[in-house]
Amino acid sequence: MFKINDNYLKLPGSYLFSTIGKKVAAFKEENPDKDVISLGIGDVTQPLAPAVIKALHDAVDEMSKAETFHGYAPDLGYEFLRRAIADNDYRARGVEIALDEIFVSDGAKSDSGNIVDIFSEDNVIAVTDPVYPVYVDSNAMSGKTGEYWKDKECWSNVIYMPCMAENNFVPELPEKTPDIIYICCPNNPTGTTLTKEDLQKWVSYANEKKAVIIYDAAYEAYISEDNVPHSIYECDGAKTCAIEMRSFSKNAGFTGTRLGFTIVPKELKSGDVSLNSLWARRHGTKFNGAPYIIQRAGEAVYSEEGKAQTKEQIAFYMKNAKNIREGLSDMGYTVFGGVNAPYIWLQTPDGMKSWDFFDLLLEKANVVGTPGSGFGPSGEGYFRLTAFGSAENTEKALERIKKL
Amino acid sequence: MFKINDNYLKLPGSYLFSTIGKKVAAFKEENPDKDVISLGIGDVTQPLAPAVIKALHDAVDEMSKAETFHGYAPDLGYEFLRRAIADNDYRARGVEIALDEIFVSDGAKSDSGNIVDIFSEDNVIAVTDPVYPVYVDSNAMSGKTGEYWKDKECWSNVIYMPCMAENNFVPELPEKTPDIIYICCPNNPTGTTLTKEDLQKWVSYANEKKAVIIYDAAYEAYISEDNVPHSIYECDGAKTCAIEMRSFSKNAGFTGTRLGFTIVPKELKSGDVSLNSLWARRHGTKFNGAPYIIQRAGEAVYSEEGKAQTKEQIAFYMKNAKNIREGLSDMGYTVFGGVNAPYIWLQTPDGMKSWDFFDLLLEKANVVGTPGSGFGPSGEGYFRLTAFGSAENTEKALERIKKL
Repeated sequence: MFKINDNYLKLPGSYLFSTIGKKVAAFKEENPDKDVISLGIGDVTQPLAPAVIKALHDAVDEMSKAETFHGYAPDLGYEFLRRAIADNDYRARGVEIALDEIFVSDGAKSDSGNIVDIFSEDNVIAVTDPVYPVYVDSNAMSGKTGEYWKDKECWSNVIYMPCMAENNFVPELPEKTPDIIYICCPNNPTGTTLTKEDLQKWVSYANEKKAVIIYDAAYEAYISEDNVPHSIYECDGAKTCAIEMRSFSKNAGFTGTRLGFTIVPKELKSGDVSLNSLWARRHGTKFNGAPYIIQRAGEAVYSEEGKAQTKEQIAFYMKNAKNIREGLSDMGYTVFGGVNAPYIWLQTPDGMKSWDFFDLLLEKANVVGTPGSGFGPSGEGYFRLTAFGSAENTEKALERIKKL
Repeated sequence: MFKINDNYLKLPGSYLFSTIGKKVAAFKEENPDKDVISLGIGDVTQPLAPAVIKALHDAVDEMSKAETFHGYAPDLGYEFLRRAIADNDYRARGVEIALDEIFVSDGAKSDSGNIVDIFSEDNVIAVTDPVYPVYVDSNAMSGKTGEYWKDKECWSNVIYMPCMAENNFVPELPEKTPDIIYICCPNNPTGTTLTKEDLQKWVSYANEKKAVIIYDAAYEAYISEDNVPHSIYECDGAKTCAIEMRSFSKNAGFTGTRLGFTIVPKELKSGDVSLNSLWARRHGTKFNGAPYIIQRAGEAVYSEEGKAQTKEQIAFYMKNAKNIREGLSDMGYTVFGGVNAPYIWLQTPDGMKSWDFFDLLLEKANVVGTPGSGFGPSGEGYFRLTAFGSAENTEKALERIKKL
């Protein structure tokens, strides 16, 4: 008789954004006349950049002729893309990453979910709290998080590092020593960042404790301030303790186009086993590459035109962020983030529960946001709005919130 | 201190096709003047069908405008694609599959590798031998296969069901009862098939033993004979015991375009837990959908033009298959497969070891094939050639083999 992985049964509710999706769908069905604006899920709205569109069309044409057709991609991704990544994302910032340390994938969500595969069950993970749900859920699914305490809304075997207004959203080194540390910077959901000194402290700590840092830099392109690291490898010693994940979803609007990559440095080892070789084995066995045409689109993001055009997209979203930030602030809300990230993290008024504020906003303002508590216990009393809407919808949403 | 998943360390060598790739690359580097023909990895060579190309261009254009831009896809895949699948792959064959039983993915390799996630460690798997390496390797990586016995080239906790000329490549019900049974039909690597009666026997057995069948139907489009099932759900009772995986790689040349899907019927349960809900949770947490433009390309495969054009592609490959089959037969080789599948499975001459025949073919004929033993112990003494080459290369390869 087959046995299921009953770690799945311990998971509370469904994936956060599925829950929100269902709530919104139900509201729309009951209120077909209402114009619901979503500033909830971090999904982009700007079309792909012209340089990317051109690369896609060109690659599609290549796929139409036997001479230029592309079948299975190389395990790690096409060299043209990995070279563009090494040059632009790393060498340009003084970091040398070898081409075989870059693993092209269908996105950072898959990578951050799948990376758990190469670690044994008996690792203790530490996450900032609030946190992107995939880190915890994927560890829970693979039996690394202990039991779920429903009353406390947290897992028995996870180290939660509160990030709140009180500590300026900078996680403190935990009392209990973790084995795997998840850091997302610029942060989803809080929109806040670490300075290079903050991050260096974590890198040194991880090396000292022989812990590994899973560093999610999906929002790197939104950094506007100087002292915020674009890559963890800007810190000394990061190559012996850190895996970095990147995405094209937010820097080039690829949420529906799917492309990302993960850096696993060869120096990162457990005894004499390189994590690079483990991830290569997983990648080669359980994945078959991102589509050729999408990898060509990714390459175009690094062209001169592509860079200029995606920079404009980001400036567009960051204008929304500024408007939300300032608009809410003017209304008397306490807000964070939105300077180096497309997320605004606000404190709910009068200590309202996050889900109550979600319902209020949906029902009275017809605006969808994300309840802070959905990201972890320390997110309670906070709420996330994204800057990814159109300028018009963002303005409209603010007007409606003002009237609450 | 972080701990790696040391199941990975038990894996013998690297993934089969990576090993072959490295061997071929080394040969080419030493022999830059040789024209090497690959009939090794099952990679297509025909360009995408015109209807698919048109759908790709149209979808790319949609991505270039805000009004028609697509961000994150629905968790299960777009309804337009799932509806086309339900209608064409199932309803047309008398099988009703609900839309929420279809999970669109980036390909059958990912799905067949990731499906292990929803099962606990203490399942005993049964595989046909020889077998597509991903089934066993992904189970080994998640600790379900026991120890690797190097001398016997097999795992202590896997039930191998030999498929050889002696039993007409039809696996017999095993003595020890398995929990999870992998069946690939038409078969990779042998190119042989089961009849509907053969498969019904397995479905009844699985229901009786409360085992689950992972049914890989990636080569379904190559079936030319009447009594070969296109879907396992043609068998009575399959919905309570079988998960079916499909791919666009071989039926429409999507190896480098990446698209597939998995059917998990809601009736398939462990106690009161539906496997459909577990896979939905995994899909929603660790995957973020196939690209919109690729899903549109998949939809085009089911259009009238798409069907006609991909049928032609398959006829083209099956002509190669016939040529290889008959050509080798005329040379005195004993050959199997190639009638309902694009693979020809030949017995090596004079009981030669599979890898020795690989080396001989590479060095003397400059033809790349796949050694049967790479697919499992009972593959020893066999060798796989694929029909996916160009007609010209296939002819040329046969000429060279003739001269050996």
